[in-house]
Amino acid sequence: MQHLLSMNELTKQEIEHLMETARRIESGKRMLEVPCTFASNIFLEPSTRTKNSFYIAEKRLGMDVLDLNGADSSVTKGETLEDTLKTLQAIGVQLAVVRQPEVGVLQQAAKGLSLSIINAGDGTGEHPTQSLLDLYTISKEHPSFEGLRVTIAGDIKHSRVARSNACALKKLGAKVSFVAPVPWQDESISTDYITMDEACAQSDVVMLLRIQHERHVISGQQGDYLQEFGLTKEREQRMKDDAIILHPAPVNRGIEIESSLVECRKSRIFDQMANGVVMRMAIIQTLLKGEIANEYKNYQQQTIG
Amino acid sequence: MQHLLSMNELTKQEIEHLMETARRIESGKRMLEVPCTFASNIFLEPSTRTKNSFYIAEKRLGMDVLDLNGADSSVTKGETLEDTLKTLQAIGVQLAVVRQPEVGVLQQAAKGLSLSIINAGDGTGEHPTQSLLDLYTISKEHPSFEGLRVTIAGDIKHSRVARSNACALKKLGAKVSFVAPVPWQDESISTDYITMDEACAQSDVVMLLRIQHERHVISGQQGDYLQEFGLTKEREQRMKDDAIILHPAPVNRGIEIESSLVECRKSRIFDQMANGVVMRMAIIQTLLKGEIANEYKNYQQQTIG
Amino acid sequence: MQHLLSMNELTKQEIEHLMETARRIESGKRMLEVPCTFASNIFLEPSTRTKNSFYIAEKRLGMDVLDLNGADSSVTKGETLEDTLKTLQAIGVQLAVVRQPEVGVLQQAAKGLSLSIINAGDGTGEHPTQSLLDLYTISKEHPSFEGLRVTIAGDIKHSRVARSNACALKKLGAKVSFVAPVPWQDESISTDYITMDEACAQSDVVMLLRIQHERHVISGQQGDYLQEFGLTKEREQRMKDDAIILHPAPVNRGIEIESSLVECRKSRIFDQMANGVVMRMAIIQTLLKGEIANEYKNYQQQTIG
Repeated sequence: MQHLLSMNELTKQEIEHLMETARRIESGKRMLEVPCTFASNIFLEPSTRTKNSFYIAEKRLGMDVLDLNGADSSVTKGETLEDTLKTLQAIGVQLAVVRQPEVGVLQQAAKGLSLSIINAGDGTGEHPTQSLLDLYTISKEHPSFEGLRVTIAGDIKHSRVARSNACALKKLGAKVSFVAPVPWQDESISTDYITMDEACAQSDVVMLLRIQHERHVISGQQGDYLQEFGLTKEREQRMKDDAIILHPAPVNRGIEIESSLVECRKSRIFDQMANGVVMRMAIIQTLLKGEIANEYKNYQQQTIG
Repeated sequence: MQHLLSMNELTKQEIEHLMETARRIESGKRMLEVPCTFASNIFLEPSTRTKNSFYIAEKRLGMDVLDLNGADSSVTKGETLEDTLKTLQAIGVQLAVVRQPEVGVLQQAAKGLSLSIINAGDGTGEHPTQSLLDLYTISKEHPSFEGLRVTIAGDIKHSRVARSNACALKKLGAKVSFVAPVPWQDESISTDYITMDEACAQSDVVMLLRIQHERHVISGQQGDYLQEFGLTKEREQRMKDDAIILHPAPVNRGIEIESSLVECRKSRIFDQMANGVVMRMAIIQTLLKGEIANEYKNYQQQTIG
Repeated sequence: MQHLLSMNELTKQEIEHLMETARRIESGKRMLEVPCTFASNIFLEPSTRTKNSFYIAEKRLGMDVLDLNGADSSVTKGETLEDTLKTLQAIGVQLAVVRQPEVGVLQQAAKGLSLSIINAGDGTGEHPTQSLLDLYTISKEHPSFEGLRVTIAGDIKHSRVARSNACALKKLGAKVSFVAPVPWQDESISTDYITMDEACAQSDVVMLLRIQHERHVISGQQGDYLQEFGLTKEREQRMKDDAIILHPAPVNRGIEIESSLVECRKSRIFDQMANGVVMRMAIIQTLLKGEIANEYKNYQQQTIG
C-alpha cells in the first residue's frame, strides 16, 4: 500500500488493519520516530480541521512538515500538480497530503512517483481519511459492522464524505440508508432514500453532513432544512438508546443539527476529531513503513562529523 | 493559573513570580522539554513581532506549533472561536495563543476548556504579555517599582498596551502619568495627563506607543505630532541620566520618536524584543506546569514498538 | 564568511570549499545538530521551490524555522527590512534567508548585523545559492571546470541566475556563451551571443532559463520562441553525447524546452533540485560554523531544571 486515494481500492482486510493500527497507537504504543522524514501538506482549497489534524499526526510521528497552500504554490503559477510532486520527491519529501478540486488528478499524478500520496479531499470525489476516522469512531461503540444500520443525511450528491463512507460501510457489511432533498440525491451512490424520521427510528449511527450553505442553500430554506432533513431535539429523543451521532464538522449549528445537540450524550462529534489524529497516524505509518525502516537504517549508519 | 487573559486578574505576587521565572530562564536554567506538546498560534489580525516571539518561545520550550491565521481559519467560515478552540483541544493542543479584535470574547470562550489560553491582544482591550515583558525590561534597570515614575505617551484611548500597563504598574507601586492629544485621552484609564516636556523631566521610564497612523492620524498632522507629543532629541537630552525609553514596536520613525533615538543609549527597544521571548517562555511554562508534568509521565511510560 | 550575498564576492577557493562540503554532506557525514538554532525565511516575492529547499536544508541541520512572507510581514506595514532583521536578531534568530525585489538592499542591511544573511534572489540582481547548486550539479559530471563550454539561454538581461552563473563559471575557468533574443541580451554580462544551434553543437552544459512569460512574452511569440531559442528534440539530438541540460525550474513545458525533454537522459533538472538541498546545507553550515559551535557549548553547559 503506497498511496491512499480512495476507499474503493481498499479491501475489507486493509480497512481492519488500519483500525487495528489506530487502536495500538491510541493505547500508547509509540511509533518508531525517525528524524528527517518530511511530509508536505498541499491544500489548494481551504481547510483548517483536516490540515491541522494531519499536521499533528505527522509531528507525533516525528516527521517534519512542509506547508504548501494554494496562494504560494507553484501550482498556481502554471506548474502541474505532477511536476510539483516530482519536485517534492526530488528534494526529499516522502509523503504528500493533497486537497485539490479535481477528481482523478491524483490517480494520474501518482503514477511513477516513489513518494506516498494521501487524498485529503478531491472535489466531489472522495475523502478516504475522513471515512476511516468515521469507521474508527463507530467501531469503538459497535465492534462489528455486520448488519449495523447507518444513515447518511445531507447533500449526498456533492459530498465526498458520503461517497467514501457509502462504499466503505457496505464493504464492511453495514446496511446504509440515505436522507436528502430530491435534488441532492444521487442514484449512482444509492437508491435507498428514506425520511429523517425513519432514519432516527431505525439507525445505530446517524451521520450528518455539513450543508455547504455558501453554495447551495436557497435563501429562506435554511429553517425548513432543519425541520425536514436535520436532526431536531424531537428526533434525537426517538433515536435508539445506544445510537450515536456523527458529523465531519465544522457544524452549521441550527441548520443540519440543533445547536444544543452538538455536545449531547449521543454525539461523538468531538471524539471524531480526536480519533482523526490517531487514524491519520495509523495511515501514515502504514504507508511509510518500508520507507521509515530504510531511513532509520541510514540514520543509524551515519556517523557524526 | 490556567489562562492569561488580562493584567487585571493577576496579583502582585503572580507578576513577581513570572518575572522571577523569566530571570531563571534567562540565566540558563533549561526547562523540561517534552515532545508532542502542541501550541496553536491563532492570529486573526496581522502580527509579525508578537507571533514570531511566541513561536520562538514555544520552540525553545520544545513545543510543536500549529499556525492558524485569519485567512485559512475556520473562524472565517462562520465557526465560532469557541468551537475552534474546542476542536484544537480535541486534537491534542494544550495551549492557544489568540489575537482577535473583540474585547470579552476570550473570557467567554475560556469557560469549560481544559487547554490554556493566552490573550495576545484583543482589540482595544488588553495585551498582557506585552505588559509583562515591559515590566521585566524595567525591572532589569529598576529592581523596585515602588515610587517609580513611568509615563505612557500616545493614543491611550485605543491602546491595549496602555490599558494593561497602567493596571500592572499601579499594582506594583509605580506612579504612572500619561501624555496624549485630548481626543486620545481616556478618563477610565487615568485623569493624570501631563505634557511631554513634563514627562521627560520627571520620568524614570518613558514608554511610547505606536501611532496607528493607518487609522488615526489626520493628514498633515504627523510632523506636528512629533513636536507636540513625541520624543525629540531635545527632550531626550532633558531626561534623567538613568531613565529609559520603551516602545512596543514596530516604531514609526519620525512620528512618535526621532529616528536617531531608536537605538540611543537610553533606548531599550531591541532589549524589549529579546526579553519578550524569555517572558513568554516563563508565562507558558507557568500555565502548562501541571500539563507538562503529566505529559512527561505518560511519555516515559510508553514503550517503543 | 558571514553572509552570502553575491557570487561576485566569493573566491574560487571559497566556491570549491562549498562544493567539497556539499559532497561530504551528500556522502552521509552528518552535521552537528544543535537545538534552538533559528532560521528565518523571508520571502517578499512568491517562491515555492527555493523556499521549500531552504526549509528542508534547515530542518536537516536541526534548525527551527520562522516563516515570514510578504503578506504578514511587518515590512509591508512600513517597517524597513533593516529593522525587521534587527528584530529577528534580537529575538534570537541566527540566519535570515531573504528574497526581495531590490538590488543592493541586502548589502546595506547586512552592515552592523551579527546574524547571517543569504540572498535568495534580489530582483534582477543575483541568486547565488541557485548558482552554487548549478555548479555542484555540473561538477558531478565534469570534475574540472577549466575549458568547459557552457551556454546560458533565455532572458539574460533580467535573469539573476544568468548574472550569478556567468560570474562564477568564468571564475572557475569555464568558457561561457549566451543565447538570447536581441532585446534580452545584456552587454554588461557578455558580448558573446551565439545561436541555439551553435550552442547545442559545441556545449558541455546547456543551461536554460525560465521565460517569465507572465511579464515578457508578447502574445503570439511563444511557439516562435521554442523554435528560435528553445531546446527542441532535434537540437537535443545534435548535442554532445555527454553534454547535460540544466534549468532552474519551474519549467515552462513547450516554451523554453520541449515537454518530452524535461526528463530525458541528458536532463539534470530534477537532480538540480536534490542537489539544491545539499548545497544549501553546505552553505548554511559554512556561514554558521562559529555560531553553531558556541551555541552547542552553551547548550552543553546548561543544566536541566
